[in-house]
Amino acid sequence: MNQPQSVAASNSAYLDYLNVRRRTAELAAPLCVEDQVIQSMPDASPTKWHLAHTTWFFERFILADHAPDYTPVNEHYFYLFNSYYNTVGPMHTRPHRGLLSRPTVAEINDYRATIDERMLDWLDTTQLSGAQQFLLTLGLNHEQQHQELILTDIKHGLAQNPMLPAYTQLSVPESVSTPMNFVTIAERECANGHNGEGFAFDNETPRHKVLVHAHKFADRLVNNGEYLDFIKDGGYTKAELWLSEAWSVLQERGWQRPIYWQDDLESEYTLGGLRDLDMNAPVCHLSLYEADAFARWADARLPTETELECAAAGSEVKGNFYESGALHPVAPGESNGKLRQLFGDVWEWTSSSYGPYPGFKPLAGSLGEYNGKFMCSQHVLRGGSCISPQSHLRATYRNFFYPDSRWQFTGVRLANDA
Amino acid sequence: MNQPQSVAASNSAYLDYLNVRRRTAELAAPLCVEDQVIQSMPDASPTKWHLAHTTWFFERFILADHAPDYTPVNEHYFYLFNSYYNTVGPMHTRPHRGLLSRPTVAEINDYRATIDERMLDWLDTTQLSGAQQFLLTLGLNHEQQHQELILTDIKHGLAQNPMLPAYTQLSVPESVSTPMNFVTIAERECANGHNGEGFAFDNETPRHKVLVHAHKFADRLVNNGEYLDFIKDGGYTKAELWLSEAWSVLQERGWQRPIYWQDDLESEYTLGGLRDLDMNAPVCHLSLYEADAFARWADARLPTETELECAAAGSEVKGNFYESGALHPVAPGESNGKLRQLFGDVWEWTSSSYGPYPGFKPLAGSLGEYNGKFMCSQHVLRGGSCISPQSHLRATYRNFFYPDSRWQFTGVRLANDA
Amino acid sequence: MNQPQSVAASNSAYLDYLNVRRRTAELAAPLCVEDQVIQSMPDASPTKWHLAHTTWFFERFILADHAPDYTPVNEHYFYLFNSYYNTVGPMHTRPHRGLLSRPTVAEINDYRATIDERMLDWLDTTQLSGAQQFLLTLGLNHEQQHQELILTDIKHGLAQNPMLPAYTQLSVPESVSTPMNFVTIAERECANGHNGEGFAFDNETPRHKVLVHAHKFADRLVNNGEYLDFIKDGGYTKAELWLSEAWSVLQERGWQRPIYWQDDLESEYTLGGLRDLDMNAPVCHLSLYEADAFARWADARLPTETELECAAAGSEVKGNFYESGALHPVAPGESNGKLRQLFGDVWEWTSSSYGPYPGFKPLAGSLGEYNGKFMCSQHVLRGGSCISPQSHLRATYRNFFYPDSRWQFTGVRLANDA
Amino acid sequence: MNQPQSVAASNSAYLDYLNVRRRTAELAAPLCVEDQVIQSMPDASPTKWHLAHTTWFFERFILADHAPDYTPVNEHYFYLFNSYYNTVGPMHTRPHRGLLSRPTVAEINDYRATIDERMLDWLDTTQLSGAQQFLLTLGLNHEQQHQELILTDIKHGLAQNPMLPAYTQLSVPESVSTPMNFVTIAERECANGHNGEGFAFDNETPRHKVLVHAHKFADRLVNNGEYLDFIKDGGYTKAELWLSEAWSVLQERGWQRPIYWQDDLESEYTLGGLRDLDMNAPVCHLSLYEADAFARWADARLPTETELECAAAGSEVKGNFYESGALHPVAPGESNGKLRQLFGDVWEWTSSSYGPYPGFKPLAGSLGEYNGKFMCSQHVLRGGSCISPQSHLRATYRNFFYPDSRWQFTGVRLANDA
Repeated sequence: MNQPQSVAASNSAYLDYLNVRRRTAELAAPLCVEDQVIQSMPDASPTKWHLAHTTWFFERFILADHAPDYTPVNEHYFYLFNSYYNTVGPMHTRPHRGLLSRPTVAEINDYRATIDERMLDWLDTTQLSGAQQFLLTLGLNHEQQHQELILTDIKHGLAQNPMLPAYTQLSVPESVSTPMNFVTIAERECANGHNGEGFAFDNETPRHKVLVHAHKFADRLVNNGEYLDFIKDGGYTKAELWLSEAWSVLQERGWQRPIYWQDDLESEYTLGGLRDLDMNAPVCHLSLYEADAFARWADARLPTETELECAAAGSEVKGNFYESGALHPVAPGESNGKLRQLFGDVWEWTSSSYGPYPGFKPLAGSLGEYNGKFMCSQHVLRGGSCISPQSHLRATYRNFFYPDSRWQFTGVRLANDA
Repeated sequence: MNQPQSVAASNSAYLDYLNVRRRTAELAAPLCVEDQVIQSMPDASPTKWHLAHTTWFFERFILADHAPDYTPVNEHYFYLFNSYYNTVGPMHTRPHRGLLSRPTVAEINDYRATIDERMLDWLDTTQLSGAQQFLLTLGLNHEQQHQELILTDIKHGLAQNPMLPAYTQLSVPESVSTPMNFVTIAERECANGHNGEGFAFDNETPRHKVLVHAHKFADRLVNNGEYLDFIKDGGYTKAELWLSEAWSVLQERGWQRPIYWQDDLESEYTLGGLRDLDMNAPVCHLSLYEADAFARWADARLPTETELECAAAGSEVKGNFYESGALHPVAPGESNGKLRQLFGDVWEWTSSSYGPYPGFKPLAGSLGEYNGKFMCSQHVLRGGSCISPQSHLRATYRNFFYPDSRWQFTGVRLANDA
Repeated sequence: MNQPQSVAASNSAYLDYLNVRRRTAELAAPLCVEDQVIQSMPDASPTKWHLAHTTWFFERFILADHAPDYTPVNEHYFYLFNSYYNTVGPMHTRPHRGLLSRPTVAEINDYRATIDERMLDWLDTTQLSGAQQFLLTLGLNHEQQHQELILTDIKHGLAQNPMLPAYTQLSVPESVSTPMNFVTIAERECANGHNGEGFAFDNETPRHKVLVHAHKFADRLVNNGEYLDFIKDGGYTKAELWLSEAWSVLQERGWQRPIYWQDDLESEYTLGGLRDLDMNAPVCHLSLYEADAFARWADARLPTETELECAAAGSEVKGNFYESGALHPVAPGESNGKLRQLFGDVWEWTSSSYGPYPGFKPLAGSLGEYNGKFMCSQHVLRGGSCISPQSHLRATYRNFFYPDSRWQFTGVRLANDA
Repeated sequence: MNQPQSVAASNSAYLDYLNVRRRTAELAAPLCVEDQVIQSMPDASPTKWHLAHTTWFFERFILADHAPDYTPVNEHYFYLFNSYYNTVGPMHTRPHRGLLSRPTVAEINDYRATIDERMLDWLDTTQLSGAQQFLLTLGLNHEQQHQELILTDIKHGLAQNPMLPAYTQLSVPESVSTPMNFVTIAERECANGHNGEGFAFDNETPRHKVLVHAHKFADRLVNNGEYLDFIKDGGYTKAELWLSEAWSVLQERGWQRPIYWQDDLESEYTLGGLRDLDMNAPVCHLSLYEADAFARWADARLPTETELECAAAGSEVKGNFYESGALHPVAPGESNGKLRQLFGDVWEWTSSSYGPYPGFKPLAGSLGEYNGKFMCSQHVLRGGSCISPQSHLRATYRNFFYPDSRWQFTGVRLANDA
């Protein structure tokens, strides 16, 4: 993560802080207390844990170290709301977060209010150093990541309920069918990684030269209609389409369709409850295994992260993000000769394993645990989703998940060798 | 379960119903909404599930079959709140009860209120047949069983929280040390099983002759002080004291002390939070494995259920029950030449596997699933505990759990061959 | 186990030893070296392990303690071939027995020869005390138990092989159909347990009075034809026929028929390879769960061990044992008004949990681990099987297995209340 | 895999075939029958399975398709010895290979002899097409891969035995201590992948341009002395040194040292039995997790596969291979300003996930399952080991294993950014 050169005006920091924190509260607002307690699988966390953990981040990494004579709100919280930072102390284990009925949702909201007050007070009274400004920005970006997780985790949680309750009402626009065209890109050298202007995570650095071989890109994401063809063609029953470990996982868990699709192959569970599948909208909630098998079936392949970053470089970060209110991927606009849907809708799986860039150095200290220690066995995803905050994304942004993960808003764009 | 001969006055049924139902609400009162959602292990259920399931029992087995033109409150509830009655339909699987955020606690309390209204209306307007009167009594006894489970389950749930929150404040009396004496009982023939006066579960029937060999009984339960001696003597490290499968379980799960004892061997988690161990109070929350190993260490054995029933037959059902407010086992009164603590404090493990009595017939229909299908691999416990409702117990009462169960209020009385 | 009063003539001991040891070698003879290595599940052991362990038993419990200046054959063997005697030292864990390629089969046969030589030398030169005579007899009975296990374990092992190799050729007689009649037995008091004449295991003692309630007994075992009717009637699909834990196991493991029956429901794997089902022969390799579900379907119940012992008391130990050469259960002879097949063919499941008799004391010392520590969660089986050595059985004999065990030669006789 | 341009003289093919097949038999020679049966974990296979599977490969992919009127030796073998080729039919599952006592070792050796005869006959009588010549060479390279696996699998198998039997006697030379120096390599563009001369697997193609950033390389492998320092410095107890998933695995499995090191940290199990650790010899049997943690501790990083291939390109394939008879990694010779140990001793873990090269196309047909379907979640290793056949290796060779694999001869060379 790059340290900003100059100290931001405290006024802007103040507003950024308020905006991000308010957004988180907005996300929790449609949920009843009970919804905020449940943890539907070890990979997901309860909403109230997200509310507390993001707050802990500010308390632990800013206030505890930078506010004078700081007294923690509750010593237990340092244990309960530490996610995975071994160097700052032991922690409550992740699969057991859903067993914590206390602190209650109300107590956690009090915790949030107290830390907000202290943070704003600190911002008011402190001439932030560059490092402090960076910590603040990091904390806000961290909270934005958890905003997306609040939605993916609660979607998974509510989907376990046979009554299939909705999180909220969606604003999904009408859709039209548009063809998928391929765009050819010649071999070229370009640069990957963040250029140092504005905030970036450490895993986006350093910027470095890359060689991109000639390839082709689909100009839009794969849609539900195309994925349905794959299923109807026996996609889930043909071993030859699947990676070896994918085939094992599929057999073991009985996968036959995307996680939220219903048996009828006509409807899917969404944050707005059960909805008809829009055949023009991007297929969503694929594991890497499914994305890869689909690509093989379609006689194509997944993009590399290098290819995608080079393609996205210089493009405006526009698309179907959280702010659109759809909270669901939507059909793209008309073909325009360019790559559509580069940002938003669904995270795009890449064939690239998540690893360090040449010359990568993690952040110093405990925050070095933020990204680097996950650089193994996961795959990079690019572009953000329909539930990502728009201001959180950029062309160099690297998301990462295990290849069997299906509960994120993940989809696929086809690529091929030229 | 014996069908009562005569129809009870509807007034008494009315009051019984109100009292039992009110008691359940009273038990949930100290809990916040969040507490009522969590499920700390597959064996335990969320409080709100207990609140709904006991209500479902009346709706499903009485109103749906016996109230004219009955319309269910919510069809989903028939699926969600069926526990294990395969013959009335499919059900939500037990280990996933803690994933249900909806219906909310408030909705479940509404459900309770609606069913109460309908039940009272039905009681008001119906001349109960013997069979109907029996169903009502069964439903109330069923709810009393769940009253105890609400407390054991929430104790386990709160104990997972590093903050060790209390359920409520306990009223525990002062304790004094009294010796453990053995009482010798000569060989005799007696009768076991329920005699048909008043309510009993089907598993207590039929009454039948049994032969009891000469034996000795400790006149009180084993206490914490004695159990601490066992631990300090290396009880948990000596394979020769343990049943073979007990030793495997102990090694696999790392058992070193009773489940709620703290590392210091001086305090334990209780429904009132952390408390000093009372060395004179009965040791509690033992698995059968631990009870059995302790007995072997003490050169004694567990009682059989036959021995215990014969010993308790004719005694008044008095002791430390829920009504005492201790919600924790307490030291016995002075020795009096008789068996003390035959009822209340802790359920007493027996060496008897839970099986059918000679001539046993389960109830007809779906309610035949209530007890009979569990007659395998479990052990019988006798006497009730400090959190059992007093009116629920009797000398013929058979409780049963798996030998590795530790979260019930279970303890041990020593016996021996004469 | 009762200590014989007088010292047996050394000549007879000598012959007994030779005969039993020779029989074990005879059992291994049809197997190739490879067969003797494999372990098909944690419950089963490789043949070569049985060959070594039974030898270890003599070395460890007789020679090491009773032969002057004894030097062990190989110190490693004390670790490798100890089964479960914690008090004589640590041991190689059971599920890993199949990973031991060394000592080889030839080395183990050498070990057997060496110990045989030493044992015979010891018998030659020692005036056996009563205790020593008892140890010898115990060792021989122990080896007989493993003779049966060698066959059950290798049957399970060979059955894993898609080529379904035979262990040997069977001598199975022609069968005829005979009706199943019920015999009524009035309430009576009788004695259970061993009377001290000849050898018995400690778990058969002490002899004690029992009260048997009036009941009925089928005069022969349930046969394949009857069991096929159960299957065809949907026996494996009706939850109401099964114990609760049985139903879970069945669903989890996908049980649809007895373990060695083929899909076609017309043939089964036997020690002689694949054979047509003989509809008149006893159904074999049932778990307790299946035996119990069948009984419920047939509107009957399992016998208790008390009932079976009282029924068998005084009968000659005759039937289809190993010596018949069938190595498979066979159809009974004509009805004769008495209980047929009380011994041999298949072990008969009882509803009795395996526990201590009133006044039971395990053997002193390490041999106390032989039986007592398994008195939990298992069920008693009676009567021996078609692969038991005839001389090993008696009316008081108690075998025991877990209710989900299917690889033993286990079947079912129906009983009912009178 | 590249298709050779011209047909090789049949004489050379004949000799190659004989040599490779003979080597396999040589590898099995020191093993007793029992050793060839055991399977110590799902990842390993019994020796006799390797002997049969490599034979099946020739029968299935050459004889069955290319020999006129071919009749299989045994139809069962097509099922039993298929490893993972779904497109040629179903197969016996991998974790159950150790349950197959039949066919026996002798029968498998007969199978080998029969196929050898048929293959040689086919070679004698056939003018091989380019495609056939390729299949032959592929089959021989395939068998060479299994030669290495025979040794790694049997090492793991014998190591499970408390007696720690040796596979054979080793010829390990004296060792001297030499420093580890770093060599700096400037940024450069080079080519990766096979150039088409001679045999290569499909995963080594196509040759393509790569950009290598400036970096440093250690001029020898990390040795036992250095790894011991890591352990003594608490390497296995410091979370901050480990990848997140590595730390979980380490805690779950209780790792504290390399898999074959003994508790005393002074000796290790080798194919020659227990031996003192040679502090100058390369540390061996590291998982990627351990290699990576060591590198982090040493303030370095793992090489990428690109870096290693560029470094090795043009070097002669010389080093400590199977042919040396050491069967164990040995200390390097004196420093010489170049990278030592680039081939042989231990496979070198890289930070590169195993994936397709740009433009990669798997072989057509069933042999396309050989490599491509494993391109997920594994890491590339380079250079071969002390048990690899020398003729099997080349600079472009890509081996791959999961990051938690420890039973291969795997070690680590340090790299760093320049």
